Amino acid sequence: MTTLKIGTLAVVGVGLIGGSFAAALRRAGGVDRILGAGRRPETLAQAVTLGLIDEAVTLKEAAARADLIFIAAPVGAFEAIFSEIAPHLGAKTIVTDGGSTKRNVIEAARSGLGPRVAQFVPGHPMAGSHEKGPEAADPDLYVGRRVMLTPLVENHPEDVAMVQAVWQQCGANVVCIDSNQHDGVVATVSHLPHWVAALFMEYITGGDDATLKLETAGSGFRDFTRVAQGSPEMWRDIFVANRDAMLAELASLRQVMDRAEHALREHDAAWLEEMLARAAQARADWPGNLK
Amino acid sequence: MTTLKIGTLAVVGVGLIGGSFAAALRRAGGVDRILGAGRRPETLAQAVTLGLIDEAVTLKEAAARADLIFIAAPVGAFEAIFSEIAPHLGAKTIVTDGGSTKRNVIEAARSGLGPRVAQFVPGHPMAGSHEKGPEAADPDLYVGRRVMLTPLVENHPEDVAMVQAVWQQCGANVVCIDSNQHDGVVATVSHLPHWVAALFMEYITGGDDATLKLETAGSGFRDFTRVAQGSPEMWRDIFVANRDAMLAELASLRQVMDRAEHALREHDAAWLEEMLARAAQARADWPGNLK
Repeated sequence: MTTLKIGTLAVVGVGLIGGSFAAALRRAGGVDRILGAGRRPETLAQAVTLGLIDEAVTLKEAAARADLIFIAAPVGAFEAIFSEIAPHLGAKTIVTDGGSTKRNVIEAARSGLGPRVAQFVPGHPMAGSHEKGPEAADPDLYVGRRVMLTPLVENHPEDVAMVQAVWQQCGANVVCIDSNQHDGVVATVSHLPHWVAALFMEYITGGDDATLKLETAGSGFRDFTRVAQGSPEMWRDIFVANRDAMLAELASLRQVMDRAEHALREHDAAWLEEMLARAAQARADWPGNLK
Repeated sequence: MTTLKIGTLAVVGVGLIGGSFAAALRRAGGVDRILGAGRRPETLAQAVTLGLIDEAVTLKEAAARADLIFIAAPVGAFEAIFSEIAPHLGAKTIVTDGGSTKRNVIEAARSGLGPRVAQFVPGHPMAGSHEKGPEAADPDLYVGRRVMLTPLVENHPEDVAMVQAVWQQCGANVVCIDSNQHDGVVATVSHLPHWVAALFMEYITGGDDATLKLETAGSGFRDFTRVAQGSPEMWRDIFVANRDAMLAELASLRQVMDRAEHALREHDAAWLEEMLARAAQARADWPGNLK
C-alpha cells in the first residue's frame, strides 16, 4: 500500500468537523500545507494559533491553490461556496465535503460548480460532538467512524479512490452508497434523534413544573437529550435540507408510537413487555457497542 | 448531627437498586445486619457471595426481624409483597421502597398493609442504569442523586425523618413532594424518554435498511437509545402503573411535535432555528451538567 500525500489541503470551515479533518491528516503525515477559509477572521486566526491550519485564505485563493478542498460548513451555505470557488478551481483540484445531507449538497454542486461538478466527490463522516469551533478539533474524531461517500456518475473513479484513501488516513471506515439511501439512513439514525431530543427539551422547558423536572432529571435524561446541544444553525440547515426524508421519518415513527399508545390505553401489558424486550435486545446487540 | 444506625435492614429484591442501597448503607456503617428476600434463590445466593446481604430470608422472616424494610421490586409485585409481610410486620418496623411510581404503590400499600400503612414511607431514588442484578450493585449509585419521598398523611414525622436520614447516609439529596406531582414529574423526565427511546429502536429494527442504519449509527444514536436497554419487566410495570400520567405526557409531547412538523412542512426555518436554540440553551443550562 502506497501512502497518499496531498500537497495542499484547503479546509472551508475550520470548526469541529473541518478542524478535526485537518488535524487528523496532519498527524498522519498526509499533507504538506493546510489552508483555511471561512466566514469569521477571528475563527481562522484561532485555527492558525492552534496549528490546525498554516494560513488563512479567501475562498478564491483556496480554489486556486489547493489540491484537495474539504467543505465543512452548514449545508445551507454550500451553493454560495461552490459558486465562489468554481471560476478559480484548479483543473486537477478535488473537492469533497462533510455535509450531513447529500441530495441537496449535490444539487448545490451541480448549480454552483456547473461543468466542474465532476471534480466534487460528496461525503459525510458519521462523527460529531455537541462541542463547536476550532478548539473542539480532535485528530481522533474520525478514528473507527463510518464515512459515507455518495459518488456522482460524473466522478472519475480515481478521484473517488483518492477521497476514500484520505478518509482512511484519518482512521475512518469508508463506504460508498447512493445519495437517496444516504439521506434516508441519516434521517433515521441521526436527524430523527436530534429532532426528538430538541423537542423534548422544548416540551419540558415550556411545560408545568419545569424547574422541578430539570432538577429531578437523572442520567437517562442526560443521555437522551445530549444531542440537543448541537449547533442550532447547523441543525436548522440539516432539517430544511433533508425535509422530505424527515417528514417521511416523522410519519413512520408516529405509526409506531400510535401503536404503542394504543397498547397502553388498552392495558395491553403483554404487548408492551414484548416491545420493550425487542427494543432492549436490539440495543444490546447494536454493533456500535463494541467500539 | 447524630449518626443513624439501623439494627437490621431487609432488602426485598437484591438487584441494582436494592443491592446498591445495601452496599451504600453498609459502607456508611449505618447498619448491623442485612437480610435479603426475593423471588429467585440463585440471585439471593449471589448477593450473599458478593457480600451485599448477610443472609437470604423469606418475606415473612424479613417482616418479623427487620427494623427497616426496603422494597426494590417491579412495582407490579408490590401489592403481593405488602400482603405477605403485613401479618408479620414488627410494630416499630418501617417500610420504604424504591418504586418508580408512587400513586399506585401507595394504593397497593393501603390495600396490602391495611391499618399498618402508617409504617410505610414511600420513596423513589432517581438513579439507575441499564445494568441489572446483584453484580451491578454499586455503593456510589446514589451519591449526589435526588431521592423523592412522598409521605402519607398517616406517617409519623419521625419515621419520614428516619428514611430521609438513611438516604442521606447513601449520599443522596432528599426532597418530599406530593405523590401526584411525583408521578407527573417522573413521567416527563424518566418514563417518556424511555418510551420514546424504546419505540425508536422498535422503529429502526422493524423498518427498511435496518442493518445499514444500525451500522451507520454513531454517538448521538448511542446516547439517545441507551435507556432502551432497561429491564422490560420493570418498565412494563412502570408504564402500566403510571398509565394516566403517561397518556397525558404523550398527548402533550405530540402537540409540541406537531407544531415543529408544521414548521418543517411550511419551510419555516426561522422558527426551527429559534426552537433549536432554545433547546440547546436549556440543555446547556441543565443543573445536572454540574454533577
